[in-house]
Amino acid sequence: MGQLAGYDDRFFMDRCLQLARQASGYTAPNPLVGAVIVDESLSQRSPLPSVIGEGWHPGAGHPHAERFALWQAGDRARGGTLYVNLEPCNHHGRTPPCTEAIIAAGIKRVVVGMVDPDPRVCGTGIARLRSAGVVVDVGIEETKCQQLNEAFVHRVLHHLPFGILKYAMTLDGKIATTHGHSYWITGKEARKQVHQLRSGCDAVIVGGATVRKDNPFLTSHHSHSPNPLRVVMSRQLDLPLQAHLWQVNEAPTVVFTTPMAHSHIRAGLEELGVEVITLPTLTPRRVMDNLYQRGFLTVLWECGGTLAAAAIADKVIQKVWAFIAPKLIGGVNAPTPVGDLGCRLMTEAIGIERIRLREIGEDYLIEGYIKPEEPVPQS
Amino acid sequence: MGQLAGYDDRFFMDRCLQLARQASGYTAPNPLVGAVIVDESLSQRSPLPSVIGEGWHPGAGHPHAERFALWQAGDRARGGTLYVNLEPCNHHGRTPPCTEAIIAAGIKRVVVGMVDPDPRVCGTGIARLRSAGVVVDVGIEETKCQQLNEAFVHRVLHHLPFGILKYAMTLDGKIATTHGHSYWITGKEARKQVHQLRSGCDAVIVGGATVRKDNPFLTSHHSHSPNPLRVVMSRQLDLPLQAHLWQVNEAPTVVFTTPMAHSHIRAGLEELGVEVITLPTLTPRRVMDNLYQRGFLTVLWECGGTLAAAAIADKVIQKVWAFIAPKLIGGVNAPTPVGDLGCRLMTEAIGIERIRLREIGEDYLIEGYIKPEEPVPQS
Repeated sequence: MGQLAGYDDRFFMDRCLQLARQASGYTAPNPLVGAVIVDESLSQRSPLPSVIGEGWHPGAGHPHAERFALWQAGDRARGGTLYVNLEPCNHHGRTPPCTEAIIAAGIKRVVVGMVDPDPRVCGTGIARLRSAGVVVDVGIEETKCQQLNEAFVHRVLHHLPFGILKYAMTLDGKIATTHGHSYWITGKEARKQVHQLRSGCDAVIVGGATVRKDNPFLTSHHSHSPNPLRVVMSRQLDLPLQAHLWQVNEAPTVVFTTPMAHSHIRAGLEELGVEVITLPTLTPRRVMDNLYQRGFLTVLWECGGTLAAAAIADKVIQKVWAFIAPKLIGGVNAPTPVGDLGCRLMTEAIGIERIRLREIGEDYLIEGYIKPEEPVPQS
Repeated sequence: MGQLAGYDDRFFMDRCLQLARQASGYTAPNPLVGAVIVDESLSQRSPLPSVIGEGWHPGAGHPHAERFALWQAGDRARGGTLYVNLEPCNHHGRTPPCTEAIIAAGIKRVVVGMVDPDPRVCGTGIARLRSAGVVVDVGIEETKCQQLNEAFVHRVLHHLPFGILKYAMTLDGKIATTHGHSYWITGKEARKQVHQLRSGCDAVIVGGATVRKDNPFLTSHHSHSPNPLRVVMSRQLDLPLQAHLWQVNEAPTVVFTTPMAHSHIRAGLEELGVEVITLPTLTPRRVMDNLYQRGFLTVLWECGGTLAAAAIADKVIQKVWAFIAPKLIGGVNAPTPVGDLGCRLMTEAIGIERIRLREIGEDYLIEGYIKPEEPVPQS
C-alpha cells in the first residue's frame, strides 16, 4: 500500500495531523492527536485503500483519538492499519490504555508519527503492540508530528509551558510611536492571523503597561474558537479598574502581582471576577510555573519590550512570531520589541533558527525558534 | 517572429537589459542601455531568428548602445529589427543622434522598452523613426525597463540623484548594541550583497558618527567593480584623522561640512587628499544637490538613524533596502534604523510599497519604495 501513488503512509499521517488540529487550543495538558484506520483488504474491489475510521482527541478527560477511530471502524478494524501521529498510550490514565484496545480490535499494523516523550509512555506503547504481534512503523512525517506537538514535548521535558513571543513592528523596528501610539502597525490580515494564533494558545500574557496604554481585548475574536486565559503581570497593580481585560464574561483573566500591590485595586479586580495571585517575586519564570500547574501547553507573550526581555532572559520563550509592517515610523525613543538583554557585543545576540517567512496580507511574518544551545545573556 | 516560442520580443528585450547592466555603476549621468539587432530573414535557413549585433552604453562620452550593435551588424543590419530598452536619442549630444544612424542602416523595425523621460528626447526619437518609415513598437517589458533606469528617470524628473537607504538590523529592530557595537549584524552573504549593491551606486553617504564608531571602508571590495564616491556629512568635522575613508588611493572621499568646522581637521583631511566642501547649512538635500551637479544617478545612504530620518524628511530617499538578521540583541537604548520623523500616531507612518523579499544567506532583505503620495511628516 505504501506504493499506491499519493496514498502512502505519509498521506494518511498527514490526515492524522489534519484531524488532530481540530482540537487546537482545547487539549491542554494533552497533546494534539489524530488517528485514521485504513482497510487494505478492500483493495481488490477498489484500487485505493479505504478509510474506515477516523478520530481525534478532543481534550483532557475525553477518549483518545484511537478510540474514536476504532469505534467508527467497528468490526472492520480487524486486519486494518491504524495511523496515529503520537505513540498510543500504554498506561491507565483517565482512560484505559489505547494499546489494549488496538490489540483487541485486531489491528494488524500501526504507523506512528513520533514516540511519546512522556516518560509514562516513551516507547512502552510501541513495545506492547509489537509484543502482541502488531507490526509497528515509527517516524513517518516525524518532523511535522514533532512540530504539531512541540508545546506538549516542551511541557513534558521541561515542566514548563511552551513560550511564544509575538510582536508587530515597523520596518524600522518600532512597536509604537515615540508617543506610545500603536494602532495599527499591521493590516487586517495580520491581525486576523494573530486572533487565530491566540486561539491555539492556552494563555496570553501582557504587562501592566500594555493594559494602561493599549487596553487590549486579547481574545481570539471568533465565537467558534477558544479564548486563551488572559494574564497580566503587574508588581504594584497600578492598573485602571476600567479595562477590556476585566470583562471576564468574555474570557477569564488572571493578574499576577506581588505583596507591594495596591490593596484597593486588588479588591476592585476581584470584585469584577478577575483572579489575583500574589507571588513573592514577580518573574516570567514563576508565572510560567503557575501556568504549568494549570496544565497549559502554549503561552503567548504579547507584552512590551521590557517584559519580553525578562521572559527571554528567564528562558521561557522558545519561539518568536515577528510581524513586520512595510512602513517607517521613526523615533529615537520609540519602543522596540525587546528591551535590555545585557548584550555588549553583536556576537552575543540570541540566534533565531528554523525560520519560516510568510506574507500575510500587506505584512510579513518571520517565525523562528530561539537557538537552545546559545547561552542567554543575563542582564 | 513574436510567435516563435521563447524568442519573442520580450526575450530580446530581456537580453537588452542584461547587456545594459554590464555598465552598472559606470554610466552616470547617462542611463543603462543595451541594444540587440535581430535578422529575421535568416529564419528560412534556421528556425530561429538570428542575433547579428549587440551592444551596451559603457558610460558618458562613449557611443550609445545602438551604435555598438549597428557596428557589429554592419551591412546585415538592413531590414533587421533593433531592440533597445530606452528610446533612441534624437539630439546632438556628445554623439550624433542614434535615430539617424538607425535610419541610415536600413533597420526596418525598432522595439523600444520605454520612452526617454529626458525632455530633450521624450518621444521625439520615436517620432523621427516613424517619419522615416521605420515600424516602432513601444513598451515591451516596460516595468523592467523603468526599474533598471529608475535612478536615471528620477534624476531627469526631479533634478536629484535617486536615494536609497540601506540598513541592517536584528529581528528586534536594532542596528547596534546599546554599547554601539555592530560587527556583524548580518552574515557574509548579505555583506557580499551590500558590496555588490554599492558598486551600482555613484556615492555612499555616512555621518560623522559612523566614521567615529565603525571606521568603515564603504568600498565595493571588488577589483573589477567601480567604487562609489564616499561621502561624509559632518557639521563640525569632529572626525579622527586616522580613518579608512581617508585612504583616497582606494576610492575618493568627500566631506561636507559647515563654517563651524574645526580648521585643523579640515587642513589635515585636505592634506590626505580628501575633498572638503563647506555648505552654509548641512542638510541631506543640499548634499544631494551637490551630487546631482556631479552627474550622479544613485546615492546610497548607509548612515545611522538620525541622518536617515533627516534624509527621509528631506525627501531624498526613494527606496529602502532593509536587511534583517534572524537574531535578537535587545536594548531599550540600542540604536534603531530611523530616528525622529515627528510621527505622533501610527497612521502617520511612511508607507513602503512595491516590496520584494529575498533570502540572502542566513538573512533577509526587504526592498521597497517610499510611497510618493503620502506626505512626509516634518520633524
